[in-house]
Amino acid sequence: AANKTLLVLPGDGIGPEVMREVSRVIDWMERRRAVSFRIEEGLVGGAAIDAVGTPCPDETVAKARAADAVLFGSVGGPKWDSLPFDQRPELGILRLRKDLGLFANLRPALVMEPLVEASSLKADIVRGVDIMVVRETVGGVYFGEPRGVETLPDGKRRGFDTDVYHEDEIARVARVAFDLARKRRGKVTSVEKANVMQSGRLWRAVVGEVHKAEYADVQLENMYADNCAMQLCSRPKQFDVILGNNLFGDVLSDLAAALTGSLGMLPSATLGAVDSTSGKRYALYEPIHGSAPDIAGRGIANPCAQILSFAMLLRWSFGMEEDAKLVEAAVEKVLAGGLRTADIMQPGMARVGTSVMGEAVVREL
Amino acid sequence: AANKTLLVLPGDGIGPEVMREVSRVIDWMERRRAVSFRIEEGLVGGAAIDAVGTPCPDETVAKARAADAVLFGSVGGPKWDSLPFDQRPELGILRLRKDLGLFANLRPALVMEPLVEASSLKADIVRGVDIMVVRETVGGVYFGEPRGVETLPDGKRRGFDTDVYHEDEIARVARVAFDLARKRRGKVTSVEKANVMQSGRLWRAVVGEVHKAEYADVQLENMYADNCAMQLCSRPKQFDVILGNNLFGDVLSDLAAALTGSLGMLPSATLGAVDSTSGKRYALYEPIHGSAPDIAGRGIANPCAQILSFAMLLRWSFGMEEDAKLVEAAVEKVLAGGLRTADIMQPGMARVGTSVMGEAVVREL
Ligand SMILES: CC(C)[C@H](C(=O)O)[C@@H](O)C(=O)O
Ligand SMILES: CC(C)[C@H](C(=O)O)[C@@H](O)C(=O)O
Repeated sequence: AANKTLLVLPGDGIGPEVMREVSRVIDWMERRRAVSFRIEEGLVGGAAIDAVGTPCPDETVAKARAADAVLFGSVGGPKWDSLPFDQRPELGILRLRKDLGLFANLRPALVMEPLVEASSLKADIVRGVDIMVVRETVGGVYFGEPRGVETLPDGKRRGFDTDVYHEDEIARVARVAFDLARKRRGKVTSVEKANVMQSGRLWRAVVGEVHKAEYADVQLENMYADNCAMQLCSRPKQFDVILGNNLFGDVLSDLAAALTGSLGMLPSATLGAVDSTSGKRYALYEPIHGSAPDIAGRGIANPCAQILSFAMLLRWSFGMEEDAKLVEAAVEKVLAGGLRTADIMQPGMARVGTSVMGEAVVREL
Repeated sequence: AANKTLLVLPGDGIGPEVMREVSRVIDWMERRRAVSFRIEEGLVGGAAIDAVGTPCPDETVAKARAADAVLFGSVGGPKWDSLPFDQRPELGILRLRKDLGLFANLRPALVMEPLVEASSLKADIVRGVDIMVVRETVGGVYFGEPRGVETLPDGKRRGFDTDVYHEDEIARVARVAFDLARKRRGKVTSVEKANVMQSGRLWRAVVGEVHKAEYADVQLENMYADNCAMQLCSRPKQFDVILGNNLFGDVLSDLAAALTGSLGMLPSATLGAVDSTSGKRYALYEPIHGSAPDIAGRGIANPCAQILSFAMLLRWSFGMEEDAKLVEAAVEKVLAGGLRTADIMQPGMARVGTSVMGEAVVREL
């Protein structure tokens, strides 16, 4: 991986402090595994607004394009809440997804055995849960036009958004879901409101066509989004891969993550298309959790999701499977050893802060 | 209530069989409480498609307008799944909501003490949960125009919907939520994706304005929909009233219902505006659960949600508070006595079918 470039974007809130723990892991790798890749840093979100006046500077986008992978922290916080819509920190991540064509967001919701009791759900309901949510991330209501808040002749306001999907956008993310299902337990649950929405009707039709033509060996189930929320809460083990549009994928992946009880543990990857000439695939890795402004700067955030995002990056973008596994195993061992940050604290365990957790992971390595 | 008219619309799936148990309750009332109201019946959903070729016949809408309240069962099932979009059974309920202006759907998610263990969540997480979801039901992406699936010049399809809210639509449903909160624990959590959607931005602004001008005594909290799904799953007791648009309200109210573990127990009401001259308010009452085609006709469905929907109707539309309480108390006693339908079955309880449950409620009365 000597010629690979990694762009690190810490962002806001707990982003910088959990990213610091990733640096320790990288240091260890360089020292002990004779690995070397180039590391760039960049500005994004509120931090970028404060420094250069915009949440996603062109320079950051250019660096992201030039890099082989992006490791993203998190963005947003009350400090920037009153900014106009088109200057909000969230544009940091939204523009990166859009400009790099990162259309498939992979969000594993995995219940690790040492953390079964951290869930708000009963142990027998969540033990062994292993769900992968595949969320479309460059289309739908997040970007559809027209959109806006307009003032009508009588002075009243009207706000509107367009939820729109082209069949090719649906087909390509469906393929990602089906491909993953093949390597997992062979089942895709595709989620929409085809009983209410036209884009949902097309979604169901296209997913069905791709399934029939290319993935007849995978089991496909269609489910309404409301029912899926219910089923995730009551019987999560029925799911393998869940496929959803940008908005349903957002809500349902957060729900799937929450039911593991260990949000601070969960990484995610957002992938673009493979370039047919260069073979390059843009990819961004980020924890599922947000910037958590309420605990930022207190040194108590859980760095594991960020560290595991880095492991995902090693595997998917740098082809360093062995190193990825080392990092993942180290995190599991630290948990099995009884260390817990506040978010996953349980009776009888040792409560530690961000840096003790990060150091422990390096020690296990 | 002698001059009140009740329109009963059993619909599809388990609708007719659970509605039969409501008839027993009504019979009892007429015999023992000297109550009499006129009961009309009507067709809706797949049953209406089969009988007269349309999911919501004009006659049904006319009857609903003429009635003082509508008791609705449920609609839909695989039999009608391949019908064109504009002929699907769901239009039964969608058209009734729209034509009668039933804009505020009230969905209580209440954990009854005898059913604490029925939840997939840990007892200490759900014990005492008492949430009221207020969902807007005549606007947003459910009805917004333009919408459709179009074929582009190159033969590819594109599906689109419009999520649109006028500020008056937001304000009136917000008032329902704030009014309810005043009679409850004084807190409203308003849910949107104001960080991503323009209609969500307007939603947050208008709810804030109504709050400031008219309900400063109520606590208002704004929460993103993805975070709300998470919080419902991990710490449901933080919520009192949750306010959401048509789509978020749909998904989050189902989630809130699911976490009680007793979907077959939960009623809902959908209310229109009070007519300023007649004082009349259109209202429709229905269980939260759907038509459950998989168990329809087997006599095992839980009739309690339908019976409790009737109790809500007595209270809200007919002003029969005492009778409503009698019915609710009877249901609770039957549960406390150990009877359970399959959906809420627990070790040590007696498993019964639909009609035994219904009879038991009448016996308790
Ligand atoms: C920050 C926000 C715009 C974003 C989203 O809604 O996509 C976040 O919730 C996420 O899921 O990554
Ligand atoms: C049947 C369907 C159209 C309906 C909806 O989405 O509103 C249902 O899910 C509900 O919540 O009442």
